[in-house]
Amino acid sequence: MMQTECPVARSLAQIGERWRMLVLRDALHGLRRFDEFQASLGIAPNILADRLAGLVADGMLEKRQYSERPPRFEYRPTDKARDLVPVLVELVRWGTRWLSPEGPTVELIERSTGRQVDPVLVDAMTGLPLTASNVRLRPGPAAGPEIYARAARIRAGRRS
Amino acid sequence: MMQTECPVARSLAQIGERWRMLVLRDALHGLRRFDEFQASLGIAPNILADRLAGLVADGMLEKRQYSERPPRFEYRPTDKARDLVPVLVELVRWGTRWLSPEGPTVELIERSTGRQVDPVLVDAMTGLPLTASNVRLRPGPAAGPEIYARAARIRAGRRS
Repeated sequence: MMQTECPVARSLAQIGERWRMLVLRDALHGLRRFDEFQASLGIAPNILADRLAGLVADGMLEKRQYSERPPRFEYRPTDKARDLVPVLVELVRWGTRWLSPEGPTVELIERSTGRQVDPVLVDAMTGLPLTASNVRLRPGPAAGPEIYARAARIRAGRRS
Repeated sequence: MMQTECPVARSLAQIGERWRMLVLRDALHGLRRFDEFQASLGIAPNILADRLAGLVADGMLEKRQYSERPPRFEYRPTDKARDLVPVLVELVRWGTRWLSPEGPTVELIERSTGRQVDPVLVDAMTGLPLTASNVRLRPGPAAGPEIYARAARIRAGRRS
């Protein structure tokens, strides 16, 4: 996790793998048990067991025993996993817009009202949408050599 | 791309792979040329060439010749790629919050003012933040058997 300074690369190291993210998708939808994940994903049991163990090790799922005889376990998303909902919503939005020529296969709705919602990423203070045109990144207070080197290359690329 | 109905799975099929996303990160930062990407990513040339070709094939980068002798090419992000900025911003936010114990290594700023921005995903109509507690997905108008089967399993999981 500490091999790179970039938070995008760190995030991808934990959730970039396809099965991990799809397990999290289902866990955030309310699935809890091994056989539920398996039925939803159509995944080989050994691969599912590996991904569940990895998500537990990385603090995104909590494994809890819900039956002693026979011993049975469920997997619950942690706060770290629940904070991925905005990432998942953005993947739904982008995938629907650019990869779904047949139209929306899923809709995002408000739990309390069933009203359809339209996700937009904004600045918390101004409420203005954040887009490629109006935001950029700069090194932060904990930036190290990797981030500064990339920033310098980006400045050089812009000049050339 | 049409093997699954889920827009999250479709998105991951195009951008889940680590190097693809990191190439897009750099392209959206303003890097354009093969050697710029290579210097930034520290990636083997054959892998970089493969990822660039894949991103061109999937409509996220446009390859343009900028020199005839010697023949040289640059890669520019398309609108489809530029629309990934909210996804990347969410990965920065999540990675900074959960995977950066040393503090922010990058900061998100407004291009025009240099002011730091605080990204939040909201409903466009109400301005209310979208979180695991208040949004869920339901089948959309173009949903097929896969989406309906998953919705049924999620309902069953909630009852059990």
